[in-house]
Amino acid sequence: MKASEIAALVGGILEGTADPELLDLAPIDRAGPEHLTFLADARYASYLEQAQAGAILISESLTARGGTQLPRIVVQDVHRALGVLLARFHPEPEAPPGIHPTAVLGTGVDLGPDVRIGPYAVIGAGTVIGARAQVGANVVVGENCRLGEAVVVHAQATLYRGVRIGARSIIHSGARIGSDGFGYTPTETGLQKIPQAGGCILGEDVEIGANTTIDRGSVGATEIGNGVKIDNLVHIGHNVRVGDHTVIVAQVGISGSTRIGRRVQMGGQAGINGHIEICDGAVIAGQAGVFSSITEPGVYSGWPARPHKETLRTQALTARLPGLLQRLRAVERKLSGESSE
Amino acid sequence: MKASEIAALVGGILEGTADPELLDLAPIDRAGPEHLTFLADARYASYLEQAQAGAILISESLTARGGTQLPRIVVQDVHRALGVLLARFHPEPEAPPGIHPTAVLGTGVDLGPDVRIGPYAVIGAGTVIGARAQVGANVVVGENCRLGEAVVVHAQATLYRGVRIGARSIIHSGARIGSDGFGYTPTETGLQKIPQAGGCILGEDVEIGANTTIDRGSVGATEIGNGVKIDNLVHIGHNVRVGDHTVIVAQVGISGSTRIGRRVQMGGQAGINGHIEICDGAVIAGQAGVFSSITEPGVYSGWPARPHKETLRTQALTARLPGLLQRLRAVERKLSGESSE
Amino acid sequence: MKASEIAALVGGILEGTADPELLDLAPIDRAGPEHLTFLADARYASYLEQAQAGAILISESLTARGGTQLPRIVVQDVHRALGVLLARFHPEPEAPPGIHPTAVLGTGVDLGPDVRIGPYAVIGAGTVIGARAQVGANVVVGENCRLGEAVVVHAQATLYRGVRIGARSIIHSGARIGSDGFGYTPTETGLQKIPQAGGCILGEDVEIGANTTIDRGSVGATEIGNGVKIDNLVHIGHNVRVGDHTVIVAQVGISGSTRIGRRVQMGGQAGINGHIEICDGAVIAGQAGVFSSITEPGVYSGWPARPHKETLRTQALTARLPGLLQRLRAVERKLSGESSE
Repeated sequence: MKASEIAALVGGILEGTADPELLDLAPIDRAGPEHLTFLADARYASYLEQAQAGAILISESLTARGGTQLPRIVVQDVHRALGVLLARFHPEPEAPPGIHPTAVLGTGVDLGPDVRIGPYAVIGAGTVIGARAQVGANVVVGENCRLGEAVVVHAQATLYRGVRIGARSIIHSGARIGSDGFGYTPTETGLQKIPQAGGCILGEDVEIGANTTIDRGSVGATEIGNGVKIDNLVHIGHNVRVGDHTVIVAQVGISGSTRIGRRVQMGGQAGINGHIEICDGAVIAGQAGVFSSITEPGVYSGWPARPHKETLRTQALTARLPGLLQRLRAVERKLSGESSE
Repeated sequence: MKASEIAALVGGILEGTADPELLDLAPIDRAGPEHLTFLADARYASYLEQAQAGAILISESLTARGGTQLPRIVVQDVHRALGVLLARFHPEPEAPPGIHPTAVLGTGVDLGPDVRIGPYAVIGAGTVIGARAQVGANVVVGENCRLGEAVVVHAQATLYRGVRIGARSIIHSGARIGSDGFGYTPTETGLQKIPQAGGCILGEDVEIGANTTIDRGSVGATEIGNGVKIDNLVHIGHNVRVGDHTVIVAQVGISGSTRIGRRVQMGGQAGINGHIEICDGAVIAGQAGVFSSITEPGVYSGWPARPHKETLRTQALTARLPGLLQRLRAVERKLSGESSE
Repeated sequence: MKASEIAALVGGILEGTADPELLDLAPIDRAGPEHLTFLADARYASYLEQAQAGAILISESLTARGGTQLPRIVVQDVHRALGVLLARFHPEPEAPPGIHPTAVLGTGVDLGPDVRIGPYAVIGAGTVIGARAQVGANVVVGENCRLGEAVVVHAQATLYRGVRIGARSIIHSGARIGSDGFGYTPTETGLQKIPQAGGCILGEDVEIGANTTIDRGSVGATEIGNGVKIDNLVHIGHNVRVGDHTVIVAQVGISGSTRIGRRVQMGGQAGINGHIEICDGAVIAGQAGVFSSITEPGVYSGWPARPHKETLRTQALTARLPGLLQRLRAVERKLSGESSE
């Protein structure tokens, strides 16, 4: 594809007179003359000078950074342009529809048109799978699940019985959806398991990362809203509700019965207590420990999580403690000197 | 089921003159007239007024909270009553016993009566499986394992060779039991793997959450006591020993050779150093970092973990640092003013 | 094996006149007269007196610790000696080569000599598997992967399409290699997935723990160097590069595009921000939160991570805050008393 064609495709402006043929995309420090590279982040501007790429896709706001002789395709949003180009250079391989002969389907399984079921997948009785959905190799789907149109379940994921997944959602390999919640009552002989009889309902356009676990409700359902994106190795407890378009980064843990608002963002490894509420639009920093409800949008961080500005101020003062101690000593010496006069 | 029948079943007292027919349980903000809802936690008392349920199961200690016109079933322990009712309204579906024809059994596998083995399960040579045990779809069990009576291994879990699991224990989907510990010795050319030749022994009535990993011992065994409950995505290193009835919440990590006492409780995402001991009955708060042995029962929190009261006091004082700095400045000004007089 | 033979095998010195026959290794508190036990760590020296073992393997540096009547085999490095002995007492069971008849191989799969493929494994079209490699039961390998000589992929692991793994590397059960990275661009209707079209390349002699996830690159590859050892439940984001011989303990999370140097050590549950660099030889303590690049070798800890000495000093001063507050109050009282005189 010529640089000029790429510029037209992404609505960018090709600067420079050259119009090289470009075969693929590559990162700025690995690109050769056959590659289009990109600069979306000022942190990587220092790589510009040595870049060997055939051309560079660059954000309008970064064009003043560093010098480069490369032909430039200037766009407003590099990531959006990358999305378009990646879909063009690396189209997702289309799995041919069809039910692999080794798939085991329970009684009453209802498959829409153009469904794909991979080898050794096991689909429980009464499950309904929408048109164009894909179920990967060795996936296990429990009884009476409902998968919407064009849902993709990658290899080796598990849906426990009764899970519902909205259209176009993607479940990555090893995710466990609808596993038992963690609920017990103490008895004289030890902890007694409370049956986990609720459901697990995922909205449309959800993505669930590899090896993430989402427990079913105990009574009532665990609910994940539309457009929610969840990264790898996240834990979501029973009866949690996550609002639409919320983003949860890897290794976050959310304890049972907590309600997360819409368009919330949670950084990696954050931990959220049970039975609390996080309001719409809140931003939780990585590794934060949220112990009580958050009712005002804003950025929260630290342990226990507080408004990020307070966390920063406290940290700065904590770092100054050695100096404060010295000043206190000086004051004490002065006073004791004066007293003795 | 009538409200009066439910009250009799859970040993509660039905208050009010109505005796509605109830079809299922539902959370307080989702329940309709056909549902029994419940109030076990004062945090949800504010939902009482708008509750649309047919009746409410309520803790004796909460009956004074808020007003409701709903018929009430008053009990001492709502969670225990819920356990009874969930088992009644939602009995666990009984998988019919039998060995699916696609299961692959190694030589010398010994199956007790009424065992169930799901499709595409693979059972290694010499493994012994007790009466009424259930092995889910696509589970892989290594050679020479021993599963007690009525053990349940959910879909896609893995037991490495030689793992032993006591009666009635439950292993959730994707758990890895008996994986290699993380042990190496440095050499001139890099790290050399130390063979992980030990065992992995789980007691009776244990529950292991989805995608949790428990490493086998290097020399000797990793041991999980009776009645231990472990949540999702927990990591337990090689040669760890966990005492009876200990509870470990999601995403906790325990490093190698550490010994955890009986009836210990660990909050989510806590991290426990290797080669230390945690005494019986200790309570470790979520996200705590435990670097050295804990020898006194009590609540521990923070990084590094200390008695929770100390952590709280230090936090409170840290939050007061801006004020302390101002006071120090005032003192300094006063002193320098006095000196200059 | 006689104690004298063991001493010869590990290059140690047998002290004492007895030369017992030893059948296996066992930990110091579980060993009987038929066992060789070991002492590599001073923390366990207190177990010496009651040890019931037939003989003890002991580090030269610990021979002065405690009294024992047991025959002793003195070596410089107990762990290295253990490695030799474990391989002798517990040789890894050799899986017989061969392709299980239930394995599903796509078109053009290329298998080297003496490869072992377990039951229900699914290998994508165009994948190349080197000599003596082992692919466990229920493993799913995507299209066009490359596995080097003697690679071991344990049961139920998943390789997404196009993954490359160097010779002798070990992938544990449930690991997901080459899963989609977490990348989206905001649009009016919600987040739009950015295609994750890059690769995932692991070097030689790598070990990846159970249920660990390594995302493929978006553009370009995620790269794990030679000799890297990664524990269980670790998350590695897209386009991360990890240098040779780096060690990453359980539950660490590394965000996208970060570059980790050679021989770095990361303690359990540490979190590393995206788009930063960690220099060769850095040591990151457990649970540390690394938000910005580390350019000097050394030990880093805390949140946010700082040089460990600074973290310790600040912690010590924070613990002294109650005393500092009292001293400040005393100064204030004194001053106000003096003023009023």
